[in-house]
Amino acid sequence: MQNLIYAAPAAGVLALVFAWWKASWVSQQDPGEANMVEIAGRIQEGALAFLRAEYQVLSIFVLAVGGLLAFAYFGDPSRGWQIAGAFVVGAASSAAAGWIGMKVATNANVRTTAAARTGLAPALNVAFSGGTVMGMTVVGLATLGLGVLYLLFNNVLGWELTRTVNVITGFSMGASSIALFARVGGGIYTKAADVGADLVGKVESGLPEDDPRNPAVIADNVGDNVGDVAGMGADLFESFVGAIIGAMVLALGFDAVKSQASIGPVIMPLVIAGAGIICSMVGTFFVRTKEGGNPQHALDTGAFGAAGVMALATFGIAYFMWPQGGATNAQGQVVTWMNVGWATVAGLGAGVAVGLITSYYTSMAKPPVDSIAEQSKTGTATNIIAGLGIGMQSTALPIIVIAGGVVIAAEVAGLYGVAIAALGMLSTTGIQLAVDAYGPIADNAGGIAEMSGQEPQVRERTDKLDAVGNTTAAIGKGFAIGSAAMTALALFAAFAQTAGITGIDISKPLVMAGLFLGGMLPFLFSSMAMQAVGVAAMDMIEEVRRQFREIPGLLEGHAKPDTARCVKISTEASIKRMIAPGALAILTPVVVGFVMGPEPLGGLLAGVTVSGVLMALFMSNAGGAWDNAKKSFEGGGYKMKDGSVHPKGSEAHNASVVGDTVGDPFKDTAGPSLNILVKLMSVVALVIAPLIIA
Amino acid sequence: MQNLIYAAPAAGVLALVFAWWKASWVSQQDPGEANMVEIAGRIQEGALAFLRAEYQVLSIFVLAVGGLLAFAYFGDPSRGWQIAGAFVVGAASSAAAGWIGMKVATNANVRTTAAARTGLAPALNVAFSGGTVMGMTVVGLATLGLGVLYLLFNNVLGWELTRTVNVITGFSMGASSIALFARVGGGIYTKAADVGADLVGKVESGLPEDDPRNPAVIADNVGDNVGDVAGMGADLFESFVGAIIGAMVLALGFDAVKSQASIGPVIMPLVIAGAGIICSMVGTFFVRTKEGGNPQHALDTGAFGAAGVMALATFGIAYFMWPQGGATNAQGQVVTWMNVGWATVAGLGAGVAVGLITSYYTSMAKPPVDSIAEQSKTGTATNIIAGLGIGMQSTALPIIVIAGGVVIAAEVAGLYGVAIAALGMLSTTGIQLAVDAYGPIADNAGGIAEMSGQEPQVRERTDKLDAVGNTTAAIGKGFAIGSAAMTALALFAAFAQTAGITGIDISKPLVMAGLFLGGMLPFLFSSMAMQAVGVAAMDMIEEVRRQFREIPGLLEGHAKPDTARCVKISTEASIKRMIAPGALAILTPVVVGFVMGPEPLGGLLAGVTVSGVLMALFMSNAGGAWDNAKKSFEGGGYKMKDGSVHPKGSEAHNASVVGDTVGDPFKDTAGPSLNILVKLMSVVALVIAPLIIA
Repeated sequence: MQNLIYAAPAAGVLALVFAWWKASWVSQQDPGEANMVEIAGRIQEGALAFLRAEYQVLSIFVLAVGGLLAFAYFGDPSRGWQIAGAFVVGAASSAAAGWIGMKVATNANVRTTAAARTGLAPALNVAFSGGTVMGMTVVGLATLGLGVLYLLFNNVLGWELTRTVNVITGFSMGASSIALFARVGGGIYTKAADVGADLVGKVESGLPEDDPRNPAVIADNVGDNVGDVAGMGADLFESFVGAIIGAMVLALGFDAVKSQASIGPVIMPLVIAGAGIICSMVGTFFVRTKEGGNPQHALDTGAFGAAGVMALATFGIAYFMWPQGGATNAQGQVVTWMNVGWATVAGLGAGVAVGLITSYYTSMAKPPVDSIAEQSKTGTATNIIAGLGIGMQSTALPIIVIAGGVVIAAEVAGLYGVAIAALGMLSTTGIQLAVDAYGPIADNAGGIAEMSGQEPQVRERTDKLDAVGNTTAAIGKGFAIGSAAMTALALFAAFAQTAGITGIDISKPLVMAGLFLGGMLPFLFSSMAMQAVGVAAMDMIEEVRRQFREIPGLLEGHAKPDTARCVKISTEASIKRMIAPGALAILTPVVVGFVMGPEPLGGLLAGVTVSGVLMALFMSNAGGAWDNAKKSFEGGGYKMKDGSVHPKGSEAHNASVVGDTVGDPFKDTAGPSLNILVKLMSVVALVIAPLIIA
Repeated sequence: MQNLIYAAPAAGVLALVFAWWKASWVSQQDPGEANMVEIAGRIQEGALAFLRAEYQVLSIFVLAVGGLLAFAYFGDPSRGWQIAGAFVVGAASSAAAGWIGMKVATNANVRTTAAARTGLAPALNVAFSGGTVMGMTVVGLATLGLGVLYLLFNNVLGWELTRTVNVITGFSMGASSIALFARVGGGIYTKAADVGADLVGKVESGLPEDDPRNPAVIADNVGDNVGDVAGMGADLFESFVGAIIGAMVLALGFDAVKSQASIGPVIMPLVIAGAGIICSMVGTFFVRTKEGGNPQHALDTGAFGAAGVMALATFGIAYFMWPQGGATNAQGQVVTWMNVGWATVAGLGAGVAVGLITSYYTSMAKPPVDSIAEQSKTGTATNIIAGLGIGMQSTALPIIVIAGGVVIAAEVAGLYGVAIAALGMLSTTGIQLAVDAYGPIADNAGGIAEMSGQEPQVRERTDKLDAVGNTTAAIGKGFAIGSAAMTALALFAAFAQTAGITGIDISKPLVMAGLFLGGMLPFLFSSMAMQAVGVAAMDMIEEVRRQFREIPGLLEGHAKPDTARCVKISTEASIKRMIAPGALAILTPVVVGFVMGPEPLGGLLAGVTVSGVLMALFMSNAGGAWDNAKKSFEGGGYKMKDGSVHPKGSEAHNASVVGDTVGDPFKDTAGPSLNILVKLMSVVALVIAPLIIA
């Protein structure tokens, strides 16, 4: 059954074939009239231009870091330059997944608009197929890349297990690096364009959403793609890989593995990933709806069905692969195949619970969002205070759930169990990401419908598509946060194991200092990301104002705006400003590790994980709650407790708009980047651990 | 030289005599005309009414917790009920200091107004004398209380040293409990009254600041006293005691102490505290100014002079009291008298640096505040985003400085050095608190001048008094934050030593879970505090609106407002809403300790310390920066980089007012409470440590 390892790259290839098939199908669909094609072309061009610019910068970074790794490990017989190679392959795979996913998403958007002219069901089909390509490409490349590297080093070159696993951690570091830059860069891009389009186009000039006269409107639509499609794809690629690698490294600590009696615990994470691909693929076939049906139901069936089946499958895989009679870990704990299965269940349970709590704190008509809407009555200040308060409060239950999940997973299967719990949440990333990526495609489809002047019912259908999948997305967010916390802990434990330190004692002053420094980094990182959005948005505001001022007849519709210039401004600003926070994340563990030593570096990782997860929850949930507090005033207006009704345009609504704008960089730039930050720093530490102790 | 221990209570008595002398002098000054006396009477009455209500609730709490402690330790021959007694005495001393300090402060405010009719110098003298009473009462009662308890158990009852020190940790827990409630309650009170007075009185009804027609204006002035005088007094009482106790407990780990060769390291913290009192007392004599002179200079001379002399004195005290040839701690590190002196210097250096950094981030005409003012141009949202970004960024340097201070102090003198570093910053609390408490007295004096219709130059003089002392206060704030972090770490280490655990290993899953839970508490606590302010402020807003609506002729000045009702609303709301956050702080370590065990409790304390210090820096600095960004528009208006000038009342100024309002609960309620929270939880853990391991 050791041969099950071949199942992983095989499933990866299958996922890529499936993605290719879906992509071809999407591009065969009708893209609509010439003006639709033209608008979609500009969005696609802008999105790919951003990725090209980003990848140019990142390729220099990847080569430099790869070179440094090769140099640092030069002459190390146990690793050589291969770790650098794994790093480059990981980065390149992540970049390729982003490119393919976004290319197809920007093919799918206009075809979704075109399909929405005939009905809801065909539109859902096109949009979800576009998302499926992203999802399957991500999991396919990740599983294929890891599987091939493993087979290359272990089976072809005949390296021993520890050396093999330690080297392919480089793949994870490559993936995490790209993810951080993609999330930060994409987040800055999308918010700068959004604020520019809204503040000058909508508020100052009174144009409707997605109006073709607005110079920033193309940049805004590009932003949805680079932030929500490419950024999220790289994010989940990183999460998926990190969870697998964390579990593989920790598996090296089992006695049965050390004595070479079994490699089951090491390769099982890869096999689980492969099985997750199959479940996700099957799940996508359940996502279809009848005309007049509820697409929500279809998405839920697909995603939850896949996750449920996967939980059962994990028990089965563990039964076949786990050493008979169990394996004993470094702490002397005996772990059986059943234990591994239960750890998965603990992870899934925690992920669903965090998702539901997140959803409670950020959904309309629930007490938290209502309290923000209510406090908008007394103005902007009380709206902001309420939102910040809700965001802070919303960290409590998820942290209790995550802590509980960690304790249970560790109780049944040790730290390996924590890694497996994270993997349990992420094994069906294929379909989860398809659901996530489908949102911005539907959103874009609506923008194209508006700009190309379609019948109102086309926009209504795309809006309906856009509105659903929120529950699924909320659960997915819970999985993202919960798995990030658990993966970071697993990687952190993997680092301690690799660095050969027996414990990380925070009552030692140097470790305390590391903990403090680590805790501070998410604050510094968030401030950099937020200030970058602020500065980039100011540039965009100035440019849109300039065009309205200097292009005669623009506002009257006689002249065309220079949308390319807005795209260029967002691109340049975001590329320039993603570098500093990214460098901070990668350099800090290196500096602390070499200057202060491995145990203080462990303190740093613990600090960054705790404060990063907290800040991510705080910022994402505050942003989400502000957003829906604003939406509470739309439609028929919001009814306060005193019975007064406040419609769109009322003072209370205006206050809520300010809250939403504050929440934008919280939830779309800083918040999601923190999930990556905590893992990236752990994986950098893991990769350099052998150098620090040398 | 063991007899030096008597110096501590003696210095305490001296401080109280000095305070009594200053208090008598203040009350002999002219309180001015009848209407001034009447207004001042209402403020004093409101302030004392709040304290009475607060102390009623707290006395139940103190008796209940004291009873629980006595019950839990019942039959424990090494402690008996004495720890409960120490707890009650600590709580009562803190409460008494608050009562005396506030009573004198509310005597001094009107006399400062009266003195300001003749000149600046006499007004400074009265105001600073009032603050001195608070400062000296706090350090006097703290040193006397600790000294007497020590002498009672060790010298009179003849207990051995460890038992003595462990029992008087109860005093510290009592002080910290009162401090947390006083800070939270006072913080809610002052902000609810402030928002009510400002939003309805000033903004909606167009009344000037401190106008007698405003029903909330007395409550607002009461709030300055209960929040800034009594709250701060209890806060510093707690800090002072915590730093002494932390050092005393850690001193028990030295070999020379264990072998009973020397008690120098144990009683030295008390002696340093006594010497600090003398230095502070001498320092107060340097605080005087000539007419037309700069009171700033006087305050700086007094406070910094005292701190500088104290640093030298510490070397001297250590030289006399430290075991010859040094003492070896549990980590095998040899600590000499010189090392102890250098640890003090490290603490003072870190405190001054944190103060200067804090001042940089929150002062007018410095880049951070300017960037917030600049971003007010594009509206409220960008002002808020900028302020949050600055607040987050402002955590970086202080944390690096604190981490550096911890490493240096520990390098020279181990964890005991960290406690001594904290004590170094706090040893001159007497004069620092005098400077801090002088601010609200001058502020109140201005309010009384306004309400009683004094000549404009009286208000100008009190405003001038109020404006100075900011640098000194900023340094004091740096000391407060830096010492809180270091004291918390010292108490945390003291807990680990007392609980007999050899290390707190965060790579263990249960400890990780504790770390996560601990990190979350400051977020939850802050959200509770902020939401309490929100709800209390809404009540106040409704009441002020009601009075304007229902009392005929009030706005025209023909009728008097019902100020007592506003005082009552603030009092009731704040008392009611301080209970939940306070209970959270005290119960969590108990529950975690007994359910999860001592090592996870250590993880909890580490988490709460790191995230508490970060959130305190973030919230205090963001609030301070918003405040001064708003003030940047006052006077001649703010000049943006593009050359445009934005005066008071401009859109940019209005945006900055919203930022300031958001910052109020940040900097005056949640932020300062967090400093106490982190220490309170550690001291609770320290007190219950023997029960957990039993």
